[in-house]
Amino acid sequence: MEPGDAARLGPGRVTRALPPRMWLLLLLVGWGLSAGALASSSGAAAADSSAMEELATEKEAEESHRQDSVSLLTFILLLTLTILTIWLFKHRRVRFLHETGLAMIYGLIVGVILRYGTPATSGHDKALSCTQEDRVFSTLLVNVSGKFFEYTLKGEISPGKLNSVEQNDMLRKVTFDPEVFFNILLPPIIFHAGYSLKKRHFFRNLGSILAYAFLGTAVSCFIIGNLMYGVVKLMKIVGQLSDKFYYTDCLFFGAIISATDPVTVLAIFNELHADVDLYALLFGESVLNDAVAIVLSSSIVAYQPAGLNTHAFDAAAFFKSVGIFLGIFSGSFTMGAVTGVVTALISKFTKLHCFPLLETALFFLMSWSTFLLAEACGFTGVVAVLFCGITQAHYTYNNLSVESRSRTKQLFEVLHFLAENFIFSYMGLALFTFQKHVFSPVFIIGAFVAIFLGRAAHIYPLSFFLNLGRRHKIGWNFQHMMMFSGLRGAMAFALAIRDTASYARQMMFTTTLLIVFFTVWIIGGGTTPMLSWLNIRVGVEEPCEEDQSEHHWRYFRVGVDPDQDPPPNNDSFQVLQGDGPESAGGNRTKQESAWLFRLWYSFDHNYLKPILTHSGPPLTTTLPAWCGLLARCLTSPQVYDNQEPLREEDSDFILTEGDLTLTYGDSTMTANGSSSSHVASLSLEGSRRTKSSSEEVLEHDLGMGDPKVSNRGTRLVFPLEDNA
Amino acid sequence: MEPGDAARLGPGRVTRALPPRMWLLLLLVGWGLSAGALASSSGAAAADSSAMEELATEKEAEESHRQDSVSLLTFILLLTLTILTIWLFKHRRVRFLHETGLAMIYGLIVGVILRYGTPATSGHDKALSCTQEDRVFSTLLVNVSGKFFEYTLKGEISPGKLNSVEQNDMLRKVTFDPEVFFNILLPPIIFHAGYSLKKRHFFRNLGSILAYAFLGTAVSCFIIGNLMYGVVKLMKIVGQLSDKFYYTDCLFFGAIISATDPVTVLAIFNELHADVDLYALLFGESVLNDAVAIVLSSSIVAYQPAGLNTHAFDAAAFFKSVGIFLGIFSGSFTMGAVTGVVTALISKFTKLHCFPLLETALFFLMSWSTFLLAEACGFTGVVAVLFCGITQAHYTYNNLSVESRSRTKQLFEVLHFLAENFIFSYMGLALFTFQKHVFSPVFIIGAFVAIFLGRAAHIYPLSFFLNLGRRHKIGWNFQHMMMFSGLRGAMAFALAIRDTASYARQMMFTTTLLIVFFTVWIIGGGTTPMLSWLNIRVGVEEPCEEDQSEHHWRYFRVGVDPDQDPPPNNDSFQVLQGDGPESAGGNRTKQESAWLFRLWYSFDHNYLKPILTHSGPPLTTTLPAWCGLLARCLTSPQVYDNQEPLREEDSDFILTEGDLTLTYGDSTMTANGSSSSHVASLSLEGSRRTKSSSEEVLEHDLGMGDPKVSNRGTRLVFPLEDNA
Repeated sequence: MEPGDAARLGPGRVTRALPPRMWLLLLLVGWGLSAGALASSSGAAAADSSAMEELATEKEAEESHRQDSVSLLTFILLLTLTILTIWLFKHRRVRFLHETGLAMIYGLIVGVILRYGTPATSGHDKALSCTQEDRVFSTLLVNVSGKFFEYTLKGEISPGKLNSVEQNDMLRKVTFDPEVFFNILLPPIIFHAGYSLKKRHFFRNLGSILAYAFLGTAVSCFIIGNLMYGVVKLMKIVGQLSDKFYYTDCLFFGAIISATDPVTVLAIFNELHADVDLYALLFGESVLNDAVAIVLSSSIVAYQPAGLNTHAFDAAAFFKSVGIFLGIFSGSFTMGAVTGVVTALISKFTKLHCFPLLETALFFLMSWSTFLLAEACGFTGVVAVLFCGITQAHYTYNNLSVESRSRTKQLFEVLHFLAENFIFSYMGLALFTFQKHVFSPVFIIGAFVAIFLGRAAHIYPLSFFLNLGRRHKIGWNFQHMMMFSGLRGAMAFALAIRDTASYARQMMFTTTLLIVFFTVWIIGGGTTPMLSWLNIRVGVEEPCEEDQSEHHWRYFRVGVDPDQDPPPNNDSFQVLQGDGPESAGGNRTKQESAWLFRLWYSFDHNYLKPILTHSGPPLTTTLPAWCGLLARCLTSPQVYDNQEPLREEDSDFILTEGDLTLTYGDSTMTANGSSSSHVASLSLEGSRRTKSSSEEVLEHDLGMGDPKVSNRGTRLVFPLEDNA
Repeated sequence: MEPGDAARLGPGRVTRALPPRMWLLLLLVGWGLSAGALASSSGAAAADSSAMEELATEKEAEESHRQDSVSLLTFILLLTLTILTIWLFKHRRVRFLHETGLAMIYGLIVGVILRYGTPATSGHDKALSCTQEDRVFSTLLVNVSGKFFEYTLKGEISPGKLNSVEQNDMLRKVTFDPEVFFNILLPPIIFHAGYSLKKRHFFRNLGSILAYAFLGTAVSCFIIGNLMYGVVKLMKIVGQLSDKFYYTDCLFFGAIISATDPVTVLAIFNELHADVDLYALLFGESVLNDAVAIVLSSSIVAYQPAGLNTHAFDAAAFFKSVGIFLGIFSGSFTMGAVTGVVTALISKFTKLHCFPLLETALFFLMSWSTFLLAEACGFTGVVAVLFCGITQAHYTYNNLSVESRSRTKQLFEVLHFLAENFIFSYMGLALFTFQKHVFSPVFIIGAFVAIFLGRAAHIYPLSFFLNLGRRHKIGWNFQHMMMFSGLRGAMAFALAIRDTASYARQMMFTTTLLIVFFTVWIIGGGTTPMLSWLNIRVGVEEPCEEDQSEHHWRYFRVGVDPDQDPPPNNDSFQVLQGDGPESAGGNRTKQESAWLFRLWYSFDHNYLKPILTHSGPPLTTTLPAWCGLLARCLTSPQVYDNQEPLREEDSDFILTEGDLTLTYGDSTMTANGSSSSHVASLSLEGSRRTKSSSEEVLEHDLGMGDPKVSNRGTRLVFPLEDNA
């Protein structure tokens, strides 16, 4: 990378001729236009000497405004087409192609048309060189016959491209500023992910999820980085590499490509009612994964060895990077959690729920302010937004009025849907409209092998170690499914497109794009066969008829409310339970984690929930006597009314992985003795739940489902038989 | 206005130092950042010679990004504060200050702080002059020591301000590009207005509303324009005018200030359940008003006399302007209606309602595409969006699933709420942060007098003529209330800020701002006393308790569904019914309009509704026999199920102004004979309704309401007594 490259506004900006970032914003807002135009209605009463010239420029501005509108319309039509086709697919129950894959295909088609179908217009009046001193200014004042005009820096243009800057107006128009993805499109996607985490299953598998997300991503990043460095070395030897490619670049690639996004797989899981714990593992991993990948990639970028020209390993710089990682991550986490808590407090202590509109607006603004606050403090907004989403779902959600609950869920669901499909259709488009692709077959093949190995090297060993500590093991079929579900999506793309200034980054971008295409289409299409091949049980499939399906769909898309979980078919987790000889050996780990989580859960249940929401036991009973006044102030009157011993949703947070079998079987195992009242109420519930689910399975066995499903059903080892 | 002013991107742009238009987009999106920064994470592996300089510029970019975040946070905090205060006001039932007024006050306070509290930073490294030839380029390529950098034109800077361009970073940061208001903030507001029109009362009063909106606005614009021209002449004589101010400028001012926005008054009407017909008149007028004002102002701008230097009257140019007005208006109307109809057809003929998320997304995208389509075709997007909203509410809404109905309503409600409050808080801010105010006391006082006279000159004469044709008259108290409700708001502001390049426009902008402040605060605060002073009956006021109020609030904010109308207390329209001796004289007009509207309504009911929705009579019965096949294709199977003679919501559209008394009194007056079956079903309804409302009033009389309300109640002349 050349020195002057990153001169002013960051290299990502440098490569783009014009920053049509505006359009995207507008897409999301749903309104408006590039504002760069619409000059019109201006000259009004002005009618002096240069009126003709003015008229000409005005017309040009209007023309540009129209082009903006048309290019935005293109995207809207793309999305509309995608929506209609998705509907058709869903209607006919076609599952081999997900909406995101479809959006990419349509994007590709439009990209081809734009690339080869539109005439190349050259920017006739744009070029003017004006030699200056050494310094690059962000703003330029130009004196044109006595009048001063202000110009702002767009970025550097490589001398070779001087004449082709304005090569194709339409291609330029449909190219967005990469920061748009980061600042506009990702946040609603990520927030929605956090907000719609199925709390019950997420928290039940929290330990494993954290392990996969943190350790797994780090391992994957490191392995992919090293493998790619080997590939790059090889390319250098073969003479395939025409520019610099450092080790940090390889690690960076490892980081961006480690962000998995199994949106396709999860959508199919939802539709087929596949195992919820597997769903929780995959979803939880991918959500936290993204956060880790962002922070990891920026820490790698921050890795600057002391001697400016060396690219050798530097311990000090390495630890600085680790420090940056920890700092940014914990900072962003804190930001998100704090804003969530503040929102919860506001919504608890005002009677804002009287006015759902105000409540929703407040919720929206507070969630957004997380992003800004984090960015203003130098943390990562996207990560903060994720944890804000989780906090909001965990606390604030309980305080909202019924209307606000559905309103906020639906609002973010729509934003998420639009943003996601937009990104994927843009990806399709970018394959043809992005002008600086570097296709390197060796690198691409190497990358495919590397991500495969990287995923394998984190799923299998980690699962092995996790199984040491888990009472109900992650079976081989689950491990294979997780291995298989390593799709790459929006996050990898956004990270890759953010910086495409250098040769290495361009190659990475092209490779990432191809990996996303391949994984979304092939893996997305192969999910259903894979599920049946791996004998992973899927739930009852209800016919998608008019009124039923409405609930149906909503049911699974939203899922913030723990009570809205699908009918429990989590028994399948028991399938291979008896297999592991490690079940006794991992006792220490298990006990420890159980103890840790129990501490957190009881703290959450006894203090945080009562302080932040209207649920949980009254603080007057949980806090020591000397803070009685405070306790009375903080406890809302509703708590005394709701004071059932322990509500179902709370009980989830007392459950830890060690305790998990408690929910299965009628024989109550008060495993660790403590918090017996909770356990008692749990086991009651557990038995109720197990009963209904085993009844379901029985129904299957009696041939009420289709043959495939019942076939899978019979492989289940019932918890009852296991424990008794 | 100088010639070079409007040079490239329109004069509106010219006056702003930097276009921070991005921020606003983001505000609405709820995410993201000015993207102008966030460069960070760039220099990556680059570590060659100029690394230090690079680092410095990167830090600067990061700093700027932080400032962006902070300034956006300012706005968010402003809105959050507004929301919390509104809640407090609503909670304590304070009505003298509306949320928009509050937002302005907070905006003012923050504006003062920013203006006088922040240090003035000067742009140290920005200025660089570079003399050129005669031509102004939109893009500049600058050669800095061998590298080419691209710059884009921001606008002209007046020589005097050369050194103060960067006067205050914070002030600059909180200044948005005016086009943002037009392309981002207004559309959701206007769409929501169209989408939430209370159909029943809107269509019942359609004739009057159209008259007020079209004729009224034109009259008001013309009168204000002429009066202001007088004021300007006066100012010239007194020597108060320091620059040019043409007649077209005055007319332009008349157009922008004629857009009324009685949001405060309507909110209070909603809260107090004031007369729904008065509500419909005011709301309908203000909605269409806005559309007329936009198109009118751009037609006035387009008025360019042939001799370029004359500002005298030119018949050809005048007719061209009129033609432009008609063309833009009808074009925008068509665009909006067509997109609405297409959406209705899609939602009818696909089973998209199986998947509410897809349905909502489609609805959103289609509604937005209206805006883009209109802009791409050279029409006015905001106007198109308005008519699209009305069409969507009238047809598409009926096809949506229950969930999508509430989802779309809520989505646009939230967007509308945020956008509106944002505009108003920005107005408060702009009073102090806008740097080119021209306060001219004579002009301001003149403007206040002119808008008063303009409003009077359109309300009273028009009401007189309308009363000739209306069976139930618009009473004096209603006329006074309409006169009083001539608030100016978001639209006037957006039109005024769009172009602040010339001296005349700056003066207009300042004046508009003050008029908005004054009207929103004074008139908004005076609405409740005015209502009681004018003896306009208000409905029963329910206590705003927890669960009740939830419904309550929603009820009145949303109101797309005609069945959700507030309990009918429209009897007050009868108050002065017997007074007018014109009731017989205006028969011709009445009959004619009745005939015209009946034609439309029966066409709508017999053909459009069955084609576009699942309601109405089957086409097989209404279409002639020879299009039987077509009719069968277009008629949805549901129609045969729903085939009650005429559903309540449809009945509204058969009702015309002439027929209106049909809804009152038990004695059925089959006024015009035609469509008797409809009338029969109507009169049944009418009697039911009247009964319930008179019962309500009786309850009041028995002292169940507060004394004031019952006092008003007794003034009512009951329809029963009138007709019998």
